[in-house]
Amino acid sequence: MANPSRPVFLVSDSTGITVETLGQSLLHQFPELAFEVHVLRYVNDAQKARAARDRIRAAGEESGLRPIVFSTLIEAEPRAILAESGALCLDPFATFLPALQQELHARPHPAAGRTHGVIDDDDYTARIEAVNFALQNDDGVSTRHYPEADVVLVGVSRTGKTPTCLYLALHYGLRAANHPLAEEDLDGERLPAELRPFRDKLFGLTIAPERLHRIRSQRRPGSDYASLARCRHEVGQAEAILRAAGVPLLDTTSMSVEEIATTIIPNVEERGHVK
Amino acid sequence: MANPSRPVFLVSDSTGITVETLGQSLLHQFPELAFEVHVLRYVNDAQKARAARDRIRAAGEESGLRPIVFSTLIEAEPRAILAESGALCLDPFATFLPALQQELHARPHPAAGRTHGVIDDDDYTARIEAVNFALQNDDGVSTRHYPEADVVLVGVSRTGKTPTCLYLALHYGLRAANHPLAEEDLDGERLPAELRPFRDKLFGLTIAPERLHRIRSQRRPGSDYASLARCRHEVGQAEAILRAAGVPLLDTTSMSVEEIATTIIPNVEERGHVK
Repeated sequence: MANPSRPVFLVSDSTGITVETLGQSLLHQFPELAFEVHVLRYVNDAQKARAARDRIRAAGEESGLRPIVFSTLIEAEPRAILAESGALCLDPFATFLPALQQELHARPHPAAGRTHGVIDDDDYTARIEAVNFALQNDDGVSTRHYPEADVVLVGVSRTGKTPTCLYLALHYGLRAANHPLAEEDLDGERLPAELRPFRDKLFGLTIAPERLHRIRSQRRPGSDYASLARCRHEVGQAEAILRAAGVPLLDTTSMSVEEIATTIIPNVEERGHVK
Repeated sequence: MANPSRPVFLVSDSTGITVETLGQSLLHQFPELAFEVHVLRYVNDAQKARAARDRIRAAGEESGLRPIVFSTLIEAEPRAILAESGALCLDPFATFLPALQQELHARPHPAAGRTHGVIDDDDYTARIEAVNFALQNDDGVSTRHYPEADVVLVGVSRTGKTPTCLYLALHYGLRAANHPLAEEDLDGERLPAELRPFRDKLFGLTIAPERLHRIRSQRRPGSDYASLARCRHEVGQAEAILRAAGVPLLDTTSMSVEEIATTIIPNVEERGHVK
């Protein structure tokens, strides 16, 4: 029989985004171990904390392994209730707030639930508007709005342009358009004419032809579009055109959307398209 | 003269997502203080750590306030270099990894940069496919693909349906469609006929008419569409129809996209549309 997975609980009094991000980062440091991860969100009163405690305890008994709890709970009472579960409890708020309090000579205000809340109305509107911008300027429909873009992603089909634009919009409020390099663009040796006026906003995404072939094959198996020869040709041409035009080029072959987005941001900031 | 803002540096050896999330959460506990926040990403060698250290030191000298550094650095050397800056340095990896190591009887593997990397190809593909699904099923274009949806968000225009669908797709790989309730739908008393077959996948978003009025006014100032009377009528009708049909209803008035998304997830899981 395989070893049972170690039960892990990510417990938050609000969205769980902070604790999920931190907990997963720490667990990824132990890639050879198996974890069974549960996210418990909106644990914001004693009753919910007791229900969480009982679930944690039960998971420990069932697996025969002591559960691990990461929590971001502002209030001391639910934190104390979780501790009764017998799990290893790690809480960055409990750990870091005293040092911050001392350094800042200020008391923390229990702002539970507002970290990912509507704190700043302008910022919120900017993000929603940026999402609309990304949707309206997806897939090179038109270059009409490129003057308002913070960045225009270019590359052949299936290099990750659309999800990256949406991520930049949702998380950073950046207005990101995306423009595919189509077959006729790739036959030329220069940047397509409609893109030239926006050269200093362009950011190129490229990818290993073998991976592109796999991605496209999932979508349209056996098609010319997905063939390795076609992928090689397109990637080679696109890279040559973008390099010749001095467009920054990022190889996304083994990168996640998060990595692509955060690699692009400093570049956009340097070129001064962001306030 | 106003008090200078306290310099804060969020330093990561990869995307910065973990440290940004955690750092901002902790800073939000001190809402009355002013911070000047810098994110330093991909600080993944000693040279970059020295550059970061010098920037932190300079910010301290310029403001006359000791900087605060949150970092998520796997390697001990860059961490030691940052500490030379004289800032208050808080690092959840340095803090929590020893306890985890002891509990798990395992050594951490330095997996810098991979937390938000392409770790699981299937999971990655699922998220990208979910983004495509959200884009193809935005704004009620067609109900054809609703049988494959995990959830279908319904509500009047501008209640946050589209960004929520994209967030659910990008972060949780959920296939979320969105379907606006249009004027003709709101004249009836029942759920529109095309939605009835999917009743157990529907999730309603609603909003205070006053806030809807403000949001719509930014988009089309002075229009009938944005008028308070029209907003009141639409919201009232939509709520009555959704309640009568037994569709869960969430008031998004003061909620962020993150909060809406994470509130919907348990509901989707309970209804068994997610593996």
